Amino acid sequence: MWVQREIRLNARPRGFHLVTSEVLSALPELHDIDRGLLSLLIRHTSAGLTLNENASPDVRRDFESWFDRAVPEGADYWTHTLEGDDDMPAHIKATLAGASLTLPIAHGRLALGTWQGIYLCEFRNHGGPRAIAATAWGEER
Amino acid sequence: MWVQREIRLNARPRGFHLVTSEVLSALPELHDIDRGLLSLLIRHTSAGLTLNENASPDVRRDFESWFDRAVPEGADYWTHTLEGDDDMPAHIKATLAGASLTLPIAHGRLALGTWQGIYLCEFRNHGGPRAIAATAWGEER
Amino acid sequence: MWVQREIRLNARPRGFHLVTSEVLSALPELHDIDRGLLSLLIRHTSAGLTLNENASPDVRRDFESWFDRAVPEGADYWTHTLEGDDDMPAHIKATLAGASLTLPIAHGRLALGTWQGIYLCEFRNHGGPRAIAATAWGEER
Repeated sequence: MWVQREIRLNARPRGFHLVTSEVLSALPELHDIDRGLLSLLIRHTSAGLTLNENASPDVRRDFESWFDRAVPEGADYWTHTLEGDDDMPAHIKATLAGASLTLPIAHGRLALGTWQGIYLCEFRNHGGPRAIAATAWGEER
Repeated sequence: MWVQREIRLNARPRGFHLVTSEVLSALPELHDIDRGLLSLLIRHTSAGLTLNENASPDVRRDFESWFDRAVPEGADYWTHTLEGDDDMPAHIKATLAGASLTLPIAHGRLALGTWQGIYLCEFRNHGGPRAIAATAWGEER
Repeated sequence: MWVQREIRLNARPRGFHLVTSEVLSALPELHDIDRGLLSLLIRHTSAGLTLNENASPDVRRDFESWFDRAVPEGADYWTHTLEGDDDMPAHIKATLAGASLTLPIAHGRLALGTWQGIYLCEFRNHGGPRAIAATAWGEER
């Protein structure tokens, strides 16, 4: 059984956002997979996908603080600056966070840990809506 | 052919640990897969999985040194501090290292490079045992 | 339908290199997959694979600048120094960039974003040719 679809995530402000429900509600067929996997790829180079703590908004704010310090805007070594100060740091951050996730499906549900949620990492100031290529495959229930 | 199972890794001290044998010994069915893949997902947000050098303990110690400098404990920009000084840095490090691996299986064995091993990246001081969701699929030998 | 093959990438100088065409030309069978995935794993611990911007050479140069600053050679905390100043930083950078990619295939083509390309991240001064384990699977067209 194969499901393949593009999911369009609403535009969000720069920062880290919990999107687990938005992703799952676009994939009702996961319910029919007994054992399988879900692959998610964000189709952009200035945003990322990662798994992290799904409870405290504090954690997501601290992610933003750390990433902004680790990859500074306006550093003198950037040469790719035409698209704005937030552009080149966004590319680096996107590689650090990663563009894709591969997640197990068991008995019709994602088999994540209790505290794990899917983060959309929006690294641009005005990134707009973001497209995710979702592919699920496995044995039918 | 599908195999799906939770693997429980013994508690380890904070640091980077080579766990290739422990993971493989929990998955004897890999031997029956001719061409396929193994997906591993650590079901936690303060530990990670990565592939790196499987020979020198020096390398794993240097990983710890670099990660501790790159994501400092006690920095004044952390707001999520209730669970201890090692907690918020552990979340960031977990995203940098990554939570999952997708590894090729060929003729009944993982087709890793000669020097590649699976690292459990334990970022908490007392992380306890760690759960990995393992899913293998492919063509039977 | 399964395809599994080792791809040998030509030796390249230290830096970030766009290798999308080189990878695709080694996998003509992708054309026959209607819905599926491609898994790529670099079989080395001092080089990585990532997706990022496929247009400006500036971007790839800035990647090199950032990674070299983030993981400095000759730092006093490195203990694994026998294989040269570029070795231990290369291991850390390889984990930050990641060793593998999982990419969707739709209607015989990789379903990447318009601006996404596959980067070989060569972190050694003289890394030599690099081997990638490629595995594609899916439904035939």
